[in-house]
Amino acid sequence: FLLTGMGVELHCRCIQTESKPIGRHIEKVELILPNSHCEETEIIATLKRTGEEVCLNPEAPWVKKVINKIMSR
Amino acid sequence: FLLTGMGVELHCRCIQTESKPIGRHIEKVELILPNSHCEETEIIATLKRTGEEVCLNPEAPWVKKVINKIMSR
Repeated sequence: FLLTGMGVELHCRCIQTESKPIGRHIEKVELILPNSHCEETEIIATLKRTGEEVCLNPEAPWVKKVINKIMSR
Repeated sequence: FLLTGMGVELHCRCIQTESKPIGRHIEKVELILPNSHCEETEIIATLKRTGEEVCLNPEAPWVKKVINKIMSR
């Protein structure tokens, strides 16, 4: 689901995005703006407990809701 | 503005938040949900070029706009 590497990323990090609404399990969300290495906005969530990193689809309604909820706390 | 450490964070990371609207300079945004080490939602932006990390106020209207804009690309 996610490509990781040491140091500078030279490509998009997300290959596939999570389809299940896993909002409750999220501890942290990273929003990465399009840049010279990746023309897509990428969203990488870190899950509670496992610390697993999962890519989310910025266009999925449930993802937008999760972000809105975080911003309205 | 920001406390950093190796490994697990045992406290809030943000001491002070950026008041100037620096949306254009942002490369990446981290949204950290309240947890056992910090009861506040924390937002840490990484700036283009310098890679500097800056804390943002989740309640500031310009910050909400920046996040909304990222999510609507």
